[in-house]
Amino acid sequence: MDLRRGLVIFVGYTAREERGGRRGKSEIQIVKMKKVGILGGGQLGRMLLQEAANYPVEVTVMENDPSCPAAHLCDHFIKGDITKFEDVIAFGNNLDIITIEIENVNVEALVELENQGKIIIPRPGALNIIKNKIHQKEFYLQHEIPSADFAIVNSKNEILDHHHLIPAAQKLATGGYDGKGVQLIHTKEDVAKGFDAPSVLEKMIDIQKEIAIIVAVAQDKSTTLYPPVEMVFDPILNLLDYQICPADIKENVLWKAEAMAISVARNLNSPGIFAVEMFVDKNDNVWVNETAPRVHNSGHHTIEAHYSSQFDMLWRILLEYPLGNTKKIQSSIMVNLLGADGYKGETEYEGLKEVLSIPNVFIHLYGKATTKPGRKMGHATIISDEKQELLLQAKKIKRTLSIKGKEKI
Amino acid sequence: MDLRRGLVIFVGYTAREERGGRRGKSEIQIVKMKKVGILGGGQLGRMLLQEAANYPVEVTVMENDPSCPAAHLCDHFIKGDITKFEDVIAFGNNLDIITIEIENVNVEALVELENQGKIIIPRPGALNIIKNKIHQKEFYLQHEIPSADFAIVNSKNEILDHHHLIPAAQKLATGGYDGKGVQLIHTKEDVAKGFDAPSVLEKMIDIQKEIAIIVAVAQDKSTTLYPPVEMVFDPILNLLDYQICPADIKENVLWKAEAMAISVARNLNSPGIFAVEMFVDKNDNVWVNETAPRVHNSGHHTIEAHYSSQFDMLWRILLEYPLGNTKKIQSSIMVNLLGADGYKGETEYEGLKEVLSIPNVFIHLYGKATTKPGRKMGHATIISDEKQELLLQAKKIKRTLSIKGKEKI
Repeated sequence: MDLRRGLVIFVGYTAREERGGRRGKSEIQIVKMKKVGILGGGQLGRMLLQEAANYPVEVTVMENDPSCPAAHLCDHFIKGDITKFEDVIAFGNNLDIITIEIENVNVEALVELENQGKIIIPRPGALNIIKNKIHQKEFYLQHEIPSADFAIVNSKNEILDHHHLIPAAQKLATGGYDGKGVQLIHTKEDVAKGFDAPSVLEKMIDIQKEIAIIVAVAQDKSTTLYPPVEMVFDPILNLLDYQICPADIKENVLWKAEAMAISVARNLNSPGIFAVEMFVDKNDNVWVNETAPRVHNSGHHTIEAHYSSQFDMLWRILLEYPLGNTKKIQSSIMVNLLGADGYKGETEYEGLKEVLSIPNVFIHLYGKATTKPGRKMGHATIISDEKQELLLQAKKIKRTLSIKGKEKI
Repeated sequence: MDLRRGLVIFVGYTAREERGGRRGKSEIQIVKMKKVGILGGGQLGRMLLQEAANYPVEVTVMENDPSCPAAHLCDHFIKGDITKFEDVIAFGNNLDIITIEIENVNVEALVELENQGKIIIPRPGALNIIKNKIHQKEFYLQHEIPSADFAIVNSKNEILDHHHLIPAAQKLATGGYDGKGVQLIHTKEDVAKGFDAPSVLEKMIDIQKEIAIIVAVAQDKSTTLYPPVEMVFDPILNLLDYQICPADIKENVLWKAEAMAISVARNLNSPGIFAVEMFVDKNDNVWVNETAPRVHNSGHHTIEAHYSSQFDMLWRILLEYPLGNTKKIQSSIMVNLLGADGYKGETEYEGLKEVLSIPNVFIHLYGKATTKPGRKMGHATIISDEKQELLLQAKKIKRTLSIKGKEKI
């Protein structure tokens, strides 16, 4: 598979500027206000809306919870069920362009809206592939994109039919999110903990590093990549602990990872933002883990550390502007701020002032009125070109800032 | 006047970190949601609200126009007249903290709310000084802060009583904004164009440069300065054309300017953001022109070019967090995007896509549905450590991007 050749002509500013040069003054277009809808109102929607205010766009959000993080920042909020066909159709009727900030939406309705001529980003076809982990694995296989060996199982009893895959991860085909819906099967004894539902049984990779690359694909198919990030996970909550950009990987690993990320995005055949999570094994092989067809936790650092953030980039894609500049301004670490163990209820921030006195830290709190253990309550980005400084401040933040609920549990 | 000595112990991180070090873990405070109100809903409110979404704060905006730039980004919007006593009192009743994004508010109501125990930033006393150009000039005089020689006049006929000040600028005591309310009196013949209203007649300075420094003052009086910006004005519209940060000034001019900016902020005796505009004359003397007690056009570049933007900084002040880091990440130019001459009505953006293809440009459009000649419709910030690159791209933006209305006038 030699995708690297394609990369040069396909990606980044060179291609775009050449095109711009040919276009000339006479073709200058007039831009007017467009109506965009976002399905889902969580923190990703919130950060999208912070950026939306830089562009001529009128944004409607649909979400069941009127106190969700994005509710007050949009032009119009509609209380509705994003998984319900009728709600999504009604939502889409008055809009020009529709996007998502969570995969768990009614795709049939998006297909119908696309048939009516609405622009849906990502395209429903891409969403259907990604929403179901079985389809997603088959997609990688079909397009010769390396991903871990797997089998499809419908119950835990079937796991032993594929004992050669153990140690393995059993992943529910649908409904998994933020580490939920994944069961690790280290030995045959763990089979009893397995799921009795359609799922992927995936051989565990001997992981050296976990990285992610965000790919941006415009409506005219021009494409660009962000530098890879390296992720470190919390071993207990299975949630991202902190993430460094750029990843510390060898050049040949970078090339493989970039080629694979582009192959994923191209073959999904859709404009949008695609976060491609990958494993690097002990032999420097790269394997795709999974892909998100939207702005993603692995791109939060781009708000301060890169010229065009993933949120800015999605607006550029939705509104048919040129793709943004993915180059980093400085290196960065992003730390997820999770609800502390042992507390739930009304949110309180402990140590916030101490963290805000660190001169190169940016805090983003998602405005969630209540917390629970492990809930994503915010994130912090640290920028610096000194890696030791990044690590030092990341540890200081984790030690100092604690997001607790009023009730002990 | 030796204010420079004070600056060292008074400003910046050194003092703050020492304090932090003494405080220790045991005094860590718990932060909860606060209710803040902003009087005015223009672009400054809009940019404040984009930043507010990073902090635990519930924001209410009052403004007469429900389609103003800030209306849809706040938690609660109240249609009301910010110049009316009753409206401001009613607005303030349910809030903890009140700030402004325009000076033209009812200060009597703010005094009353302050007496009720509300936190008003800037304090009404500082607003009263700044709102009236006669009071402002007397304030500079009283505190020995150099500003141009002046006289107070109540009609154009009185101008000739002070002919030694000509060439002069006659500035209305109240109601001036964005270059309105100022009449240049180059010769005695220009007196006929003067205002018949209470005003300041100010001797013109032989200007070498026009600069501005933003000062941030916390509720605990800790203070920090942004680097100075250098402003270049449009000679016809008398509106800021573009502005470079940092200003290209000699070290002794910088010291004078910093000392004067701090003296203004200290003597106003109020927390808040203060934009101090100054002239540097041909002999390297520095003169205060005027001060704005709020986030200001001269600080827009701080959104991308500095660690803590002026908008982030105001939230830190309002919410009693430590002051932010005013250091630049890169040098910058900010270009105001004004409504094009000859057009009014429904806003259209010409050349926007071309400008968005410049890799180090950040566009902020204020979402104003209609335009008119000279109206502030947005701004663009360019970041780069190469001054020639900044100037090149600034000129490209001014040549390429045009904000027009549908109607020719």
